[in-house]
Amino acid sequence: MTKGRQTKAAIADAALLLARRVGLEGLSIGAVAEAMRMSKSGVFAHFGSREELQIAVVAAYFTRFEQAVFQPALTEPRGLPRLERMFESWMEQVVALDGAGCLFISGAVDFDDRPGAVRDALVHALDTWLAAIRRAIAQAESAGHLRAGIDEQQLSFEIHALILALHFEARFMQWPDAPQRARRGFEALLSRHRARP
Amino acid sequence: MTKGRQTKAAIADAALLLARRVGLEGLSIGAVAEAMRMSKSGVFAHFGSREELQIAVVAAYFTRFEQAVFQPALTEPRGLPRLERMFESWMEQVVALDGAGCLFISGAVDFDDRPGAVRDALVHALDTWLAAIRRAIAQAESAGHLRAGIDEQQLSFEIHALILALHFEARFMQWPDAPQRARRGFEALLSRHRARP
Repeated sequence: MTKGRQTKAAIADAALLLARRVGLEGLSIGAVAEAMRMSKSGVFAHFGSREELQIAVVAAYFTRFEQAVFQPALTEPRGLPRLERMFESWMEQVVALDGAGCLFISGAVDFDDRPGAVRDALVHALDTWLAAIRRAIAQAESAGHLRAGIDEQQLSFEIHALILALHFEARFMQWPDAPQRARRGFEALLSRHRARP
Repeated sequence: MTKGRQTKAAIADAALLLARRVGLEGLSIGAVAEAMRMSKSGVFAHFGSREELQIAVVAAYFTRFEQAVFQPALTEPRGLPRLERMFESWMEQVVALDGAGCLFISGAVDFDDRPGAVRDALVHALDTWLAAIRRAIAQAESAGHLRAGIDEQQLSFEIHALILALHFEARFMQWPDAPQRARRGFEALLSRHRARP
């Protein structure tokens, strides 16, 4: 990496840290410059606009998300073991111990009625992730772990639902049994769809 | 109502309209004053701070929410018919045709890491609503519609989950089949818990 690229990546990382606290919509070039101990124009030299910086943050978060949630699951065998590992890591990502929220969940609320490039980047990231969930479901079906003829779109909707409720009830309501609720909901979903031996 | 109270209620209504577009956190006394064609000090005469206004907005939204989601269900017989009506109206509230989002869902994201009186008001409202859901589940159990020994907390978590996924996938992803997904998820939950004849 050239020095310019390194600086650019470092700015995106600092902006991501900030966005996880104040939200993507609360991000400002000024605050990122301060965090980086740079001038505003120094940040502008790498990102031409706040929007461009926000899009870089979405990309940086997606990379982290994939590293934390998707890649560990690839070490599990295809099928149910992989799907279960994805769910478990996704849960951890959403109730992260560092106290920062999930940028996809807060971003969805911040941008659901703001058309534009940032919204498009967020939708694209989520779309990619939910497609990976559907693929893992289809693999569990092919492997004979889940019954044939499963509606992957429906099951992925219901899995996503549990994650969103976990985020809501653990972070906002601060109910300590939320992770257990999410896990039990997931097990119930699987047992509804499990292939009969 | 005295004139002063009428004005206060009208300001809270205008603030609610605004908050449903810009979020509770985006609310400002200035913008509310503009919407009311009043001076800022005129608004301050009724609400001593932005926080006080935000709390009034939460209360106004909760009243509307109860009128739209809870009260129509009271015309249904206790038990499953009432629970089903609550879910259906809740769905409508979340994908409202007026394009405004659910203040509880956006509020949960805005305030999940901001302790204070606004957060407390939001948590209290949600707590009251989720308790009503649990009560409706318990009534469906007493009425013999759902099997005995049901875990109301677990089922209400899973119902809430479907609503959150509906909000996410309908409003943010703009997937047209999200309401159908939520409805199918709800039916699957009920059939898992339905009393055997």
